[in-house]
This record gives sequence, C-alpha cells and structure tokens, in this order.
Amino acid sequence: MTEPTVENTENNQGNEEEEEQIVTPWDVNAKGGVDYDKLINKFGSQQIDQTLIDRFERITGKRAHPYLRRGIFFSHRDLKEILDHHEAGRKWFLYTGRGPSSGSLHFGHLLPFFFTKYLQDAFNVPLVIQMTNDEKFLWKDITLQQAREFTIGNVKDIIALGFDIEKTFIFSNLDYIQYLYPTTLRISKLLNINQVKNIFGFTDQDAVGKISFPPIQASPCFPESFPHIFPPGTDYSQIKCLIPCAIDQDPYFRMTRDVAQRLGAQKPALIHSKFFPALQGHNTKMSASDVNSAVYLSDNKDVVADKIKKYAFSGGGATKEEQVKFGANLEVDVSFEYLKYMLDDDQKLEEIRVAYGTGKMMTSDVKKILIELMVKICDQHQAARAKVTDEICATFMSIRKMNI
Amino acid sequence: MTEPTVENTENNQGNEEEEEQIVTPWDVNAKGGVDYDKLINKFGSQQIDQTLIDRFERITGKRAHPYLRRGIFFSHRDLKEILDHHEAGRKWFLYTGRGPSSGSLHFGHLLPFFFTKYLQDAFNVPLVIQMTNDEKFLWKDITLQQAREFTIGNVKDIIALGFDIEKTFIFSNLDYIQYLYPTTLRISKLLNINQVKNIFGFTDQDAVGKISFPPIQASPCFPESFPHIFPPGTDYSQIKCLIPCAIDQDPYFRMTRDVAQRLGAQKPALIHSKFFPALQGHNTKMSASDVNSAVYLSDNKDVVADKIKKYAFSGGGATKEEQVKFGANLEVDVSFEYLKYMLDDDQKLEEIRVAYGTGKMMTSDVKKILIELMVKICDQHQAARAKVTDEICATFMSIRKMNI
Repeated sequence: MTEPTVENTENNQGNEEEEEQIVTPWDVNAKGGVDYDKLINKFGSQQIDQTLIDRFERITGKRAHPYLRRGIFFSHRDLKEILDHHEAGRKWFLYTGRGPSSGSLHFGHLLPFFFTKYLQDAFNVPLVIQMTNDEKFLWKDITLQQAREFTIGNVKDIIALGFDIEKTFIFSNLDYIQYLYPTTLRISKLLNINQVKNIFGFTDQDAVGKISFPPIQASPCFPESFPHIFPPGTDYSQIKCLIPCAIDQDPYFRMTRDVAQRLGAQKPALIHSKFFPALQGHNTKMSASDVNSAVYLSDNKDVVADKIKKYAFSGGGATKEEQVKFGANLEVDVSFEYLKYMLDDDQKLEEIRVAYGTGKMMTSDVKKILIELMVKICDQHQAARAKVTDEICATFMSIRKMNI
Repeated sequence: MTEPTVENTENNQGNEEEEEQIVTPWDVNAKGGVDYDKLINKFGSQQIDQTLIDRFERITGKRAHPYLRRGIFFSHRDLKEILDHHEAGRKWFLYTGRGPSSGSLHFGHLLPFFFTKYLQDAFNVPLVIQMTNDEKFLWKDITLQQAREFTIGNVKDIIALGFDIEKTFIFSNLDYIQYLYPTTLRISKLLNINQVKNIFGFTDQDAVGKISFPPIQASPCFPESFPHIFPPGTDYSQIKCLIPCAIDQDPYFRMTRDVAQRLGAQKPALIHSKFFPALQGHNTKMSASDVNSAVYLSDNKDVVADKIKKYAFSGGGATKEEQVKFGANLEVDVSFEYLKYMLDDDQKLEEIRVAYGTGKMMTSDVKKILIELMVKICDQHQAARAKVTDEICATFMSIRKMNI
C-alpha cells in the first residue's frame, strides 16, 4: 500500500498564481487533485444543489441518478432554465460527444455517456453525439484513415450502452461537416483570433487547424445543424440544448454561449462532471499513452483484477495494524472512489464507506468488491457490444427522420 | 480629357518601404499602377517569355491566346512542368474560382474565365471551379442566404462563357465542403497560425473564420478533393493541377505549394494575369461598391456607352490640337487597354495603337470602337446567359461521372 498524500496542501500555500491548476480540453494539471470549488468560481458556473436535485426527481418522477446524488455531476449552467423549458412542454435536445481514440473505451470515457443515457430516458428527448475525429486528427499523430477507424470502434462502444435508436443521432465530423458548416461559419465570423486564443490557450505556433476547430464543436449546440431532427420551418430560436460533459469541455461552450444571442439562438445549457480519476490517484490524470492508468472495457477478467490490485491507489493504512487502528483515507482512495461511480446500491456503498473508513474492512476487501463489479460491467458491455452490428452502427449514424 | 499621370514616379523615389505596393487577395494598393516586374520579384514567380508562348503554340497546334501574346497573363509557376506532363500524356486538371458577388459580373471578373476556357479547349482537360461563398460570407456584411443566391447568379454567368459541360465541375463551398474537408484538415495540420498570418497579413483582431479559410481555397489543388473526377484508386501523387488566376491570388497557392510535398502531392502550377484596370485608370482599383468603376455584363447599351464616355481615363491630349501634335499616352489610356483585352484582331489593334499613339485618332474614335465591341460582347453574353437554365446550372454543379 502506498502512503496517502495530503490533498491540496500545495495549492493552499505559496504563490497561488504559479501553482494554479490547469484545466483545458487537452490538459488537466493540478497538484494534489483538482479543486472543483475553485473551478466553479473560475469558470463562473453554478453548483448543483439539493434543491435542484429534488426538482429533477419531481419532474422526472424517478430517483435522481447516483452521479447527481453523489456529486459526480456537480456543476451547471442554466440547468434550471432547461427544467423550466421542459415543464412548459417546449422542445430541447441533448448534445454530447467524444474524440475517438484507438481501441476500446475505458471506464472514464463512459461517465458522460452513462449519465446522458439517464437524461435521455428520464426526459425522452433527442440526443446528438458528435465524434470529433477531425479534432483527433489535428491533435494526434494519426492519419485520417485511423481517425475514421477509431470512430467506428468507439461508436459501437457507445451504442452498446443502450441508447434509443429512435431518438439518437451519432455523427462523425468528417462525414457530417456539410451540415455543421453554415453554423460553423456564422460562429467563426463573430469570434476573433484573439478571443479563441485566450479561451483555449492557443499560440501562433499552433497549427491553424486547431484554432479553426472550436467553432465546429460549438455548432451542434444549435438545432439548425440537424435539419433531419428539426426540419426547416421549425422556430430554431425556441429550441434549447443541454450538454452533459466533463468540466474540461466548458471552454467550448462558454465561447458558444457568448455568441448564441448574436446568432438569434438560445444559449446552450451545461451539466458538468468531475474527472474520473486514474488508478494511480487524483494526483495524476488518466493517460491514453499509459494503459495501466485505466481499466478498459475490453480488458479481460485477469487484466482487470491485476490492474486494480497493482495500481489502484489506496487510502488504507500502510499496514494491517494501521488500517485497523486509523481506517482508510477515503478522500484519496481510488477503489472507493470507483465504487461511487459504479455501485448503484446506495446502502451497500454506505456500509463500505463506514467499514473501510473505520478500519473494519481492508483495502483488499474493497478491491475484491470493485474487481467483481468491474468484471461484471466489462462482461455485460462486451456482450452488448458484440450485438452492435455494422448495420446498427450505420443506422445510428444515418441522416433519417426520428421518432421525436 | 484628363491630364495623364506619370506612371510610377512615386514608387521610384523616397522611402521604398513606405511606398511599397500592396497586393493581397483583398487589397490592391499601388500608387501610379501596379509594378508587375516588382511583383514577380517579390512573389518569386517566373515571367512568361516568348519561348514558352512558342511552346504553347507547338503543343496545342493553335495560335496562343491573345492574353498570352499581349502579356496579360504574364507570370507563372511550373508552367513548363505542366507542358512536360501534358506531352508525356499524363493527367492534369485546371482549377480556378470566384468569390460570388451580388448581381452581374463585370468585365474584370471574366478575364480568368475567358482564358481558362481557352486552356480547357486547347488541352482538353477537366476543369474545376470553386465558388467561395464561404469566403464572401466571412469577409462581407452579407447573410449565408445572400451568399448562396449570389453563387447561382454568378455560376450562370460563368456557364454562359461556354464551358464544356462534360469536363467542367462547378462547386459552391457551402455545398461541397465535405469533399474538401479531409484535404483541408491535412493542410491545416501542417501550417501554423503564424505562417498563415504572415502570408495573408491577418492579425489577432481578424475573425477566426478568416484564418480558417486559406486551407479551404488550397484544397481543390489536390485531386483527392474530386473523387467523382479522379476515382479512389487513382494515383493522386501523379496528377498535376494548373491554376489560372489574377496574381493577387498567388499567396493562397504559395502556401499550398509549401505543403504539397508533405502531403505526398504535386505542387500546383500557376499562370497569373495582371489586373483588369478600373475605368478611372491604373491608379485606382475596380470596386464593387462603385458601379461606375466597371462595366457590368448586365449593363445595357446606353449604360455601357455612358460609362466609357464619362469615366474611361484618357491618355490622349488635353485638347484636339495637343492630341494631334503629341499623340496619346497608351500606357495610361484605359480605352486602349480595354481593347487589348477584348479585340481579338491583332492587326486592327496594331493600327489603332499606331494611329492613336501618333495623334491620327482621337480618344472619342477609340472609345467608339470600344463601346461597339463591349456592347456586342454584352449582348452576346446576355443571350447566352438567358439560355442557362436552372437545370443546366444544377448539372454543372452536380457530382457526376465526367467524360475525361
């Protein structure tokens, strides 16, 4: 077991300017873990409070998703306006996305999709999912052909999570750009180079493709980008959009919100998640280049067990005696954190919290529960994914009338 | 009659840095007229010499186009390589374009198209014509809908010039972007923001859409942008492209040539024209916002006559006596310059040159000849344009197999 670190001490002393956490769509760098309260302040978003969660439950007539109750989706912009709009029986849609990567998705990738599926089921609204294979091509050392292949693999993983084929449109930017382009142009006429540089931290040494990209990720916020879902003649100015995403994507949509009114459109609303921590703990970020930093949906039983046992950072005592005496530091324990994301049963989670935190359970006991759960999720996912044929994939990605 | 100005004196004295002529795709500013020799030096292109014109005639078995013989198309990049390629029986194509503007085209707009038609007829190669309605939207205070409408009007004018429907593909960026986008991405990954700023003079205060545009104008240089003309499986690395354009468009293609090899493609070749002067003379540039600076193809007989009589800058003597005594300054005379662009008959042009230059013809005589010629061209064009139906227009712009 590894010695737990004390969270955030580094951030709370010394030169705050120098030590400031960096959270951009391409870089998360925060010694001692991300300070989410600070992020809310810096970005100017709102905390999701109990009143809002209660309202969610009232409107949907269902228990709120564990990610809401457990503070994993913790921040928002204009979520109240979305609920007002919904209660008034007016049109809105969900928009999320993914930058396709090689091979299988890992558990961190699934987080926004699990939650998005809950929102779609709870509110029965159309969902659009953007696969930013253009972005991946621009940022990574890959070919367009590779970006296309990654897209199909990732789309199958997403479909396997159970999205409603009647209400979900998945599109790859490389194939759908002609529908986005008019909106992209309108956005990119309203923003100057300096503004985009400031929002994303681009410099003159960055590829010109990179600074051209943000208006493309902004475009699906606007219903005219989806004429097959919202046919021409629809009053686009009255349709709202809600974006579930990790908080590092917020810069795109702060930018979009700034131009929305000048486009005669509604500002997109957001609901932000925290980051799914790497196995090594909150100190480090999950990295696609380090396969041992994450559990992949394609990992088999032995690999899952091995990764959790070897790498999942423990907040437990350094010895059995210490654990019994002092209990685990749950703030830094990755296995317990993962259970918060994966164990739906609130009562069981609470029992583990108390037992592990007071030294009645060992880290190995918690890891055993986590391994069983993750193996089960992986197995179920692999079985579901095997049923996603090329044809189903093509249907989700086809331009078609929807049942909305 | 107006006093002739002495050409280029301002440019040949004083601080050369300050007085330097500005030639960009959006701005031509050169006191005393553009110095084309200087431009060739600055841009690093090659003069078209008699040897090259002779070779043109040998290969095509036809008299060279008057624009070549009269130095109107005066500069090139890799034109010899295109002729070598053609003689070796290898594939190449022509690419030109236009930023669609409201209403009718004027004579200056037609210049590259007249010449492009000659090239297509002489070499029997495919031609692609890009309508940059996205660029116009970004640079001008117009809506996307207006940009689309201007496109159709301008395309009809272009078709009326007689392009071969079997070998000509006209496309609007707003409708064809999905085919360009993969190449646009590949180009925009290889150029950094600083490079594009330097080539085009953009600053951080420019709209981000503007700096995103040059890779879009560059993309049609590469045959993979036209899979219906050059089907997948074609060896794209062996197909060359020749671009007839006014020399102010050169920055786009200097940029493109810089990245071509890294894309595994041929560098595009270019053949550059001078600018068609405004009625007011070489000192001023033709301006879409001043209808009296140009003759439009839609102008009727009386308007053409009126514009030429009132506005065409004269190099003739200030009085009849002076004209008889000294003759006209043909270097600055706009009517004579226009005749060089429009009068195919070399012998008649030479007679006018001698008679007007030595005072045997008055400005009014030359203007009369010019008016007759322009009215005839306008009449012929209007008749031809009236035959361009929406259906013909749609065929030219449709993605179809071509007879090549």
